Order: sequence, then C-alpha cells, then structure tokens
Amino acid sequence: MKIPFHPQSTFDAVLAAPAPAPLDPELHMDLHVDLRLRLVAELCRANALAAIKLAGSGHMGSSLSALDLFTWLHFKVMNTLALSAGHPDRDIFFSSKGHDAPGYYAVLHAAGRVQQDMLLALRRRGGLEGHPVVGQPGIEAGTGSLGMGLSKGAGMAEAKALLGRGGRVFVLTGDGELQEGQNYEALRRAAARGLGRLVAVVDCNRVQSDRSVEDTAPLGDLGAKFASFGWAVETCDGHGFRALDAALARLDQHKDKPKAIIAETIKGRGVSFMEHPRALAEGHGLYRWHSGAPTDELFCSAHAEVTARVDALALELGLALPAPLLVDRPEPQAPTPTTATPATATPTTSATATATPAVSSAVSPGNVAAAYGRALAELGAQRPELVVLDGDLAGDCRLDEFRARFPERFFEIGIAEQDMVSAAGGMALQGLLPVVNSFAAFLASRANEQIYANACEGTKIIYACHYGGLLPAAAGMSHQSVRDVSLLGAIPGFLVVEPSDEQETADLLAYLVHEAKGPAAIRLHLGPSPAQLPFPPRRGLKAGQGTLLEGSSQADPTALVFAYGPVFLAEVVKAAEACADLHVGVIAMPWLNRIDADWLEKILRGVAHIFVVDDHSLVGGLGSALLAALHAGGLLTGRSFTAMGVEGLPACGQAAEVLRAHGLDGMSLAARIRVQIEGHGGTVHAR
Amino acid sequence: MKIPFHPQSTFDAVLAAPAPAPLDPELHMDLHVDLRLRLVAELCRANALAAIKLAGSGHMGSSLSALDLFTWLHFKVMNTLALSAGHPDRDIFFSSKGHDAPGYYAVLHAAGRVQQDMLLALRRRGGLEGHPVVGQPGIEAGTGSLGMGLSKGAGMAEAKALLGRGGRVFVLTGDGELQEGQNYEALRRAAARGLGRLVAVVDCNRVQSDRSVEDTAPLGDLGAKFASFGWAVETCDGHGFRALDAALARLDQHKDKPKAIIAETIKGRGVSFMEHPRALAEGHGLYRWHSGAPTDELFCSAHAEVTARVDALALELGLALPAPLLVDRPEPQAPTPTTATPATATPTTSATATATPAVSSAVSPGNVAAAYGRALAELGAQRPELVVLDGDLAGDCRLDEFRARFPERFFEIGIAEQDMVSAAGGMALQGLLPVVNSFAAFLASRANEQIYANACEGTKIIYACHYGGLLPAAAGMSHQSVRDVSLLGAIPGFLVVEPSDEQETADLLAYLVHEAKGPAAIRLHLGPSPAQLPFPPRRGLKAGQGTLLEGSSQADPTALVFAYGPVFLAEVVKAAEACADLHVGVIAMPWLNRIDADWLEKILRGVAHIFVVDDHSLVGGLGSALLAALHAGGLLTGRSFTAMGVEGLPACGQAAEVLRAHGLDGMSLAARIRVQIEGHGGTVHAR
Repeated sequence: MKIPFHPQSTFDAVLAAPAPAPLDPELHMDLHVDLRLRLVAELCRANALAAIKLAGSGHMGSSLSALDLFTWLHFKVMNTLALSAGHPDRDIFFSSKGHDAPGYYAVLHAAGRVQQDMLLALRRRGGLEGHPVVGQPGIEAGTGSLGMGLSKGAGMAEAKALLGRGGRVFVLTGDGELQEGQNYEALRRAAARGLGRLVAVVDCNRVQSDRSVEDTAPLGDLGAKFASFGWAVETCDGHGFRALDAALARLDQHKDKPKAIIAETIKGRGVSFMEHPRALAEGHGLYRWHSGAPTDELFCSAHAEVTARVDALALELGLALPAPLLVDRPEPQAPTPTTATPATATPTTSATATATPAVSSAVSPGNVAAAYGRALAELGAQRPELVVLDGDLAGDCRLDEFRARFPERFFEIGIAEQDMVSAAGGMALQGLLPVVNSFAAFLASRANEQIYANACEGTKIIYACHYGGLLPAAAGMSHQSVRDVSLLGAIPGFLVVEPSDEQETADLLAYLVHEAKGPAAIRLHLGPSPAQLPFPPRRGLKAGQGTLLEGSSQADPTALVFAYGPVFLAEVVKAAEACADLHVGVIAMPWLNRIDADWLEKILRGVAHIFVVDDHSLVGGLGSALLAALHAGGLLTGRSFTAMGVEGLPACGQAAEVLRAHGLDGMSLAARIRVQIEGHGGTVHAR
Repeated sequence: MKIPFHPQSTFDAVLAAPAPAPLDPELHMDLHVDLRLRLVAELCRANALAAIKLAGSGHMGSSLSALDLFTWLHFKVMNTLALSAGHPDRDIFFSSKGHDAPGYYAVLHAAGRVQQDMLLALRRRGGLEGHPVVGQPGIEAGTGSLGMGLSKGAGMAEAKALLGRGGRVFVLTGDGELQEGQNYEALRRAAARGLGRLVAVVDCNRVQSDRSVEDTAPLGDLGAKFASFGWAVETCDGHGFRALDAALARLDQHKDKPKAIIAETIKGRGVSFMEHPRALAEGHGLYRWHSGAPTDELFCSAHAEVTARVDALALELGLALPAPLLVDRPEPQAPTPTTATPATATPTTSATATATPAVSSAVSPGNVAAAYGRALAELGAQRPELVVLDGDLAGDCRLDEFRARFPERFFEIGIAEQDMVSAAGGMALQGLLPVVNSFAAFLASRANEQIYANACEGTKIIYACHYGGLLPAAAGMSHQSVRDVSLLGAIPGFLVVEPSDEQETADLLAYLVHEAKGPAAIRLHLGPSPAQLPFPPRRGLKAGQGTLLEGSSQADPTALVFAYGPVFLAEVVKAAEACADLHVGVIAMPWLNRIDADWLEKILRGVAHIFVVDDHSLVGGLGSALLAALHAGGLLTGRSFTAMGVEGLPACGQAAEVLRAHGLDGMSLAARIRVQIEGHGGTVHAR
C-alpha cells in the first residue's frame, strides 16, 4: 500500500500564506488568527499517522494528543525556529515522555528541521529513532523512560542562568507520567530555586498505556499538587491556541516561579475512533491506540478524517494545496533470505516489531510472554499467597488472565517502579509471594536499590523483567535492556533466568515460585518467537544446566554455543547450521548467572571451542558467568572461549537490521564462529 | 571511660509504678497521665547516647528527635507490645529513615524486646546493626536508604487487608527524607487505594545531614503536599503525648484515608547543645550532631542533662531508681597486632568508623575524600564550566571548599539522587561539566537509569561515588556499596576508577576532568586512610595501567595481587609482607574496568600466580574485568588466577571485625594466597 505524505513544500506554502482576515472572534473562538497553524497541525497529524504506518509501530494516541501543543509552542511561542540550531539563547523544548515522538518529528519536519527521508524511515536504522535521541535533528534531550524530563529541564534552566544565556525551557510531560516520583523531586527543587524560565506543559490526556489514568492509578488534583510544590499553575484546553496563549500570559505574571500549564487534551485527538472518550467506551475500558500501528483499513479511515479537515481549512484559507506524495512502505533489510512473517497486529503493545524468523517450522513458535501470562495465572491458582504487581504495562506483560481470575491479588501500581518494588517488599515481609512486572529497562535499573533493599530483608520476590534484551529494537535505547543481568547479578543469592520457548517459560516460572529460595528475575522477550527451536523432549529443569538442542551436530559437537532467548537462540541455530561442517552444537542456557559445574565439565568433553552469544552487554551477562565458571572448573585449558554480545549502545531499527548492525544475526555469527575455529579468513561482519 | 547504662529492670520498675494522681491539666499540660512515659523516654535518651558512645558512631540528632514518638507509639498507641512478636494482627512500626535506630533500639530494650548485650554492641559484629535489619529483634523492615518506607508500609497495609489481618502500619519518616521522589509515588497510591490503616509520622525536625532543611532543599508546606495527594493530615508538637493523641484521634475520623501526623520536633531534643535551634546558631548554619559520637567530655555533659530530668521525674513519681550500670567500652577485635589510631572527631560525617591501620608509617596516610575535595576546588579554578551537585552529603563528600570558592557553581539538590543526576544531564547538554556527588550505594543504584539515560545522550558527567566499598561497615548494608562497579560497568564507554591515596586521587580526578572523553565514576573511600602505601615515585597516570608498589618482592615477584583503595591495598600489602618468602608483589590498580593489554602482558612476565582482591562483590568488579583481560590476552596459560572479594551481604561492625568476617584482612588474605601458591595446608580463614 502506498502511504500519502505531505512534503515540506506544502508546509512552506501554508506558512507563507497571508494571514486570513480577522473574523468575528465570538463566532470563531480561537481560530481567527491561527487558521494557518490549525492547518499545519492537521497536516502534521496526517504525516505522523503516515510515519507510524510506515514504521509498523509507534505511539499514536499521545502523538495526536500532543500535536496541537507542539504546533503552538514551535510556531507561536518559542524563538527556536527563528534562531539557528544550537543558538545559545534559543528556547528549548523536549517531551519528557518521548512516546509522542512521531507527532513531534512531524512538526519538526513541517518546520524544516527534519528531512523527509528521516521521518519516512521512522524506527529504522538510519531513520528517526522510536524515542528521541540526542544527536538526531531538533532533539534537545533523550527521553522515553518516563519522569526524568522536569529534572533535566530544570538543570537546563540552571545552566542557562549560570551561563548568562537567554531562552526558556519548555518540558512536555504526560499526566500518567506524573506517577513517577522523580517529578516531585524536580518540582520541589525548581520552585525552591525560583526557576521562572522553566515551563512544564502537561499533555493531560487522561489515558496511560492500557487504560484511563483514573482506572490505573488516579492522580487526584494535579493543579493542587503543582501548587503545593510552589509552582504557578493554569489549566486550559490543550487544543486551543488562544486558551494556551492566555494561560501562558497569566503564568508569566509569576516571574520567579516555575510554571505549569495543565493542558486538557484528548488522547488520539483528530481521529474519531482513537479519541479517548469513544475509544475507552468501545474498548470496555481498554485503550487500543496507545501504540502499535493501524491496519491498512483503519489507517485509510483515520487519514481520510484528517484530510477532510485539511481540505476544509485550506478552502477557508483560499489555498490550493498540492496532493500528498505517495510513498512505499520500505521492505525490511533482511540479513539472510528468510520468509518474513507479517507483524501481528497487537496495537496494545508498546513495541510490536518482531524479529525476523530464523528457523522455519510448521509448528507455531509461540510467544514466551504469552506463556508467562498463562503460567502465572495457573500458579496463582496453586499458590494463594502469590500476588502480582504491575507498573502500567499489564497488556504487554500479559497479566490480564491473572487479573481476571484473581482481581484481589492483582495490584496496579501505575508508572512508579520504585514504589512497586518497595510495596512488594512490604507484602513479602507479611508473607505474600509478590511477582513484580515491568519492562526490564525500567525495573532492573530504576528500582535497582529497592530490589537490593528487599533482598537484604531475606524475602523472596520474583521480578518479571519483560522486554529484556536487544529486541524489539524499534523503540530505541531507552527501552532496550542489555544491562539488566549485570544490574542484578551482584545481589547475593539473586538468580536471573531467561526462557527460550513457551515450555521453558512455564518450567522456569514454576521453579521460581515453587523451588527457588531467594529473590529472582525472569527475563522475557517481548513479542512472538521467530522460530520453533529444536528442543529435545523435555526431562524437567535442572538448576544451572542447559539443554543441547537437536541439530546436525548434536551427536559429536566439537564446538558449543551457549545462548538464550527465543530470538538469539534462533539466530544461533541458523549459525550452527551454516557451520555444520565444523560440528557446532547449540546449548539453550536459561540460567544466566548460575552454572552447574559438573554438568559444564560433562557437556564440554570433546569440545574444543566454546562460544557464548549474549542478548546483553558483554559486561556482566552469561558470558561473564560462563568465563568465571570455566576458569573455576579448569575447563579453559586446551579450549578457546569466545564471548559475543551487544557492544555499544543498542541500535534502533527493525529486528533484522539491528541484529546485523551488532553482528549478531545468524550469518554474522556463523562467520565469527568460523573465523575463530578455522583461525583464518571468513568474513566477519563489520560493526 | 565507663559508660552509664540503665538496665531493663529499671524500665520494668518505672512501668510497674502506680499511675500518679491526676494533676491540674492547665498547669501540667500533657504530663499528667504520662509522667511514667516521660521517664521512660528520658531513660531511653540516656541509653541511646550510651550506645552511640560505646559504638563510636551513630545518629544522635534524629535518635533524640524521634524518641518521644517511639515511646508514644509503643507504650500508648500500638498493640505490638501486648501481642507476641510476629503476631499477625500486631500493629507494625518501622522508621523509614532508619538513622534513628539507636533511639529506637533503646525503646525496644525498654520494652524488653531487645537484650542489653545487643544494644551495648551497637554497630559491632553480633550486635545491633547501624541501621535496622530484618532478622534483628523488633525490626519489621530494613531501612537506612531514604524514602522507601511509605511504599513498604503501604505494601504491608495491602497485605494485611488481603490476608484479613488486624493491626495498623505506622511508618516514621524524616522531613528531609521527603525530598525523595519515591515518597510521592507511595502517597498517591496509598490514597487511591484508601489505605486507612497506614499512618505516616513525620519526625519533622527541620534539619538534615549538614544543615537545616530550609538551607538545603526547602520543602515548603508539607501539610499541603500530603493533602494534595489525598491524605488526612494533622500537625502537632512531636514531643507532647497528649498533642499526639489528639492529632491521631482527629485523623481517625477519616476512616478510608491514609493518615499523616506532621510531628514538629527538635533535632537533638533533650541535650541543650544538640537541640537544633541552638546548635545551628553555634555552628553558623552547620549542624554538628547528625551523626558521629560525642567526645568523653561532651558525652558526660549530655548524659548529665538527661539524668537531671530522670531524677526530677523519678522524684515526682516517688520512685527510687537504681543507679545505672557502668559498662566498659569494648576493645576493638583487631585481627592482627597493630597500633589503633584514635577515630578522628568528625561529627558531621555519617559514618566515622575507620579501618584499622595496616601498615605503620611515620607519614600521615591521608584521606582520599579530603584530597578529592581539594582537587575538585583546584579543578574548579581551572575549568569555569565545572559545576558540582550534591545530594545532602556535602560534608562527607568534602565539597565545602568548592562551595566556598564557587558558590554559583555549587548546586545543593537535597536528598533526591534521581533529580540530581538528571539535572546534571540537563546541565551537560547545555555545555557544563557536572560532577555529581553522593554515596555510592545511593548514586550508582537509585539513580542508575538516570545515569544510563545521560550516557545515551553522549555528554560527559563525572559521578563521584563516595563511601564506596565494604568499609566503613558500622552503618550496615544499606550504606555499604559493593555492587556499584557492576551497576555502572555495562554502560558503554563508562569508566570506573578508584584511587588508593591522595596523590592518585588528585591525578585520577584531573584525568577525568581534563582527558576522559565520556562519563566516568570515581569511587572514593570514606574516612582516613589506614596506612601510607609504598608507592614508588609517580610518573603520571597511564590509562589502564596500575603501579607495582615497593616492597620486599618488588624486584622479582612470582605472584601479583591486584587491589585498590586505601584500606584494601593496605591489607594486601600486609598479606604480601607475610608471604614475602613467596615473592608476592602488589599492584595498585585504580582502573576498575579498563586494563591496558600490553601493560598487563609485560607486568606478568615471570609471574605464575595472579590474585585480585576486590572491595566489591566477586560479580562485576575488577576481578571480572581482569579475568576477561587475561583470557583475551592469552595470559591465563600456565598461571593461576584467584579472585577474592566481598561474598554475601556486607557485614556490619568495626572495620577489623568486618574485614576478618569476610576473610579480607591481611592475615586471612595471606593464608589464602599461601594455600593457592603452595597448593596445600595453611589456614584459610573460615567464613
């Protein structure tokens, strides 16, 4: 399907148009001076939808709710576009939540600060990243993990004052995002420091990932909260330019106070079926348009609605706009010839990009997160003391079955990972067995000290670290978690596991619930598994022992590759098949920081070359644990050991692109293995 | 000096005394029914001071400010003492700040829940820990790192409801502690969940570590904050039992709201020169009695003041109290015969326990933190873009010289590590070079995701991780940081260093400021160095290269021990001397995650045995980096490699006790080295 896209020349034409004659303000409300900006905003809406459709994923709801705010700030309020990029006196803007990046990028494109090719390559290698990244055009701060923006903006305001620079700092936040405690640290400090040039704009769209804020983690009176921390606050319509102008003018009377505009917005604004009052009703409380991408049909329907408003506004302005370009959805750059599976339509997940399938199979390869959700509910039935805590990611974390069956044992904490982990600590001290859920990037890192503090209390808590590893890679480095094993591994007695298929998921979770003595993390891939892995018939889990997968070198491997997770193991299986002449066996190793020494010694008999492929940094992952175990067991003598893993910051893009960029796709791995074993030649993928 | 101590029998006598006849409430205010409890509280004040004096360190100011609250809750409000320990329906109490543990322990002792020997061994192996630890008597939650308590208490309240248990949950917090953002996550949730059985009691003593809250990080209207989050709030005198009773009674009218008592207290209450209005005036804004221990003279003066009130109250009650016991200050259990240095009187530091000196020397061994403070100010003079951020630990972090010289470039953030790190990120994006200061246990862990997010922006920020490592060990596991290298090491391009003496401190900090390209952490021992280390004449730092110390095996070592930090290196030097017959050389290795391969190959020529002694967990410290480098360089062949480090949770106690408990004192290390080299016999210290 061709996707319509408005090029920058269209925006230039709109912005160059003469201002329309003033109309009766009583009749036209805030439109009379802003008709051109209304048109810009609608054209950007169309382009944001197009970019998300091309990318196959992205956050629609908040891109649309925030779009009028982006437009107002850039074209009516800030000096940024009038000054050169990087000018020290420029006004600074960034979105703390960052999820609304497609909308923001569309406005930057309209303003000529982002090139069309970059926007059309949203969430792909070489294009704009899924969340804002410093170094990309127009981006003042890297965001995506929630709740850091006000702190950062306050720091910028301090720096501007210290350096004698002009300009204000505008930070957009979500309302759900204000559940993060760090915001209140920043609110307190900004007021105490009298940072009058700091302006928070709350895109108050009343909906978070899955549900309404009210249904998830009610915020109460936001205005009273800001005021109680010493801020000047105004609440107004977040889609009305004149209302926003008036609110900011009132705030500007408070010279030495930081300022907050609580902008009342509609999530999904401008697409009738995505607008939250209707969408929540139709979804029976679930909001389906937080992220993902619409189907072809729904995209056309949404785009047509926006286009109708574009046409009406152009007519009113007397402008004849050129027809949009029609662009192709680019084909994935698969590193190896495989059959691409269509991305499953899962609009409630935050990151739906899936890995390229690695091993063809007739059997559905399944989904470890889904298996986790089923196993969790089953274990909940067996263990009445099991409670589940969620940090506003119940859909992605597959908690709905548990919630439906055991609502009294399900705790929706909201976007507040530290509170969630410490609350679990309190529950465990009272005899419950908490299972704490969030994305690995947030849980293992932001709540790290709280996890340690719980471990110091000797209680048992299970941390489900969803979205572990490099993939999906479309959301970018704020969401990709390749440090979590290192973050948890130095806590005494803390076990970290990662399953590779549905069976192993159920087995590992049961082990953690029924058998593990101390705290543990189960790391889970997000999204469907790319391939059915050739596991032999299961004979139960043994702690610290992996499984030799079936394959052509199963009987007599002289090289072994240790790996884990559905995506990375699938790539390793491909690599091993490509190196069948070298007798390369594959070990599925779900125990990332516990290795049975006797098993290791036994499995390595006759093996001359040992490899590990970490879906993690080379520092602190399975490779580190394996090297330590090999050394401790005297097993390095006469053998080579090669650790591969994610080097550098995680790349953003489609799965195949990103695996290849890191040299971790099957063919790159095969080449690296061959070089090591043969000691010469072969092509190692350059990174 | 003998220390007076009131045994439990004295409390029994007071509590068994008949209630005094009611007096005229107009004259006697809230005393008329509570005279016995007043006496209990004063006796506990005396015992808390005694325990701190015996320990040589402890938090005096908040032990004294909170003591009336502990007494009121336990003897007037809660059912806990009436029920058996662990009764499911018991009221739960814990202090979120935990710094007030000596005061709390004294009340638990008065109530018969803590034995005298445990209290008299405060902050020593086998005694009560410096901060509360689950498993010790009367402790419901492990605390010490700030801001987690309300979350935990709310979790307990949820659990009680789910399990159908009775009892309320009382959580004491500090006021400074309410700078931590996690509190507001908990406030929001507790109100949304209607946790009516949760009661926060704010020990609102207006002073934090070094200075008043107002001078550090003003909190504004605390009551309005609680109310804006949906809590029922009352403010009252925190030393008046009747005022507290009345406040709680008013709060109890709000059945389904969590409740907060803002108890206005005096820091250092009951010792005239420690009471904060006078102490702040005398200290010109600095509060000297937050932690540490008083001199003999000041202890006697403080104790006499309390005793005078004890005597007056006993007289009024008609009680003849027995004279207190007189107990000895126990001698340190030095693992090896050395000359003990007197603990320097540093009452503004949070943890003054110092390591046992390891190597005798005529030259003062110095203090790396002090050297850091001087170097920082000097670098500040050279680099106008250098700014310093502090998280309410300016005294311990030795920031006073920088603050005095460059006040406009010094930012006191308060107890809000996440905000501090993200603010530094914003400043760095504007072109400043921030140096961020806190204790390693808090900075590397609590702000971990913020540090990663900053690194993703490509800016350069220096994180000064003070109080790194196992020692001082008196404050306990919440403050001991043996995971920080693992927490930072997987961030791409992130450098972690730790100096071992003053010269290396200055050199490393200059390297980080002038030469390092990316973000870095400098890990610093807190407190004086135990010994002058035998460094050869310096020839400048080379990245990734350590220094062979001078010693008897310097010329021809056949074994090398890599270590770092003033305390651990001193122990290793002792060990090497004890193994002089085995030709053991010592490498001071300040680069904890960067090793120059060529240098390593060269220094290992002729070396058959390699050891590393990590002031860190065995996971993710220098040992891990060294093993990887040795393997990568093919340097393991024909050599043994032995990693030693902190195993298990860090022990609490005096330095010598704790080093020995972990098998990391000089003599234990010597035995472990000997066993490895000789391959037999020798005594390895049992752990």
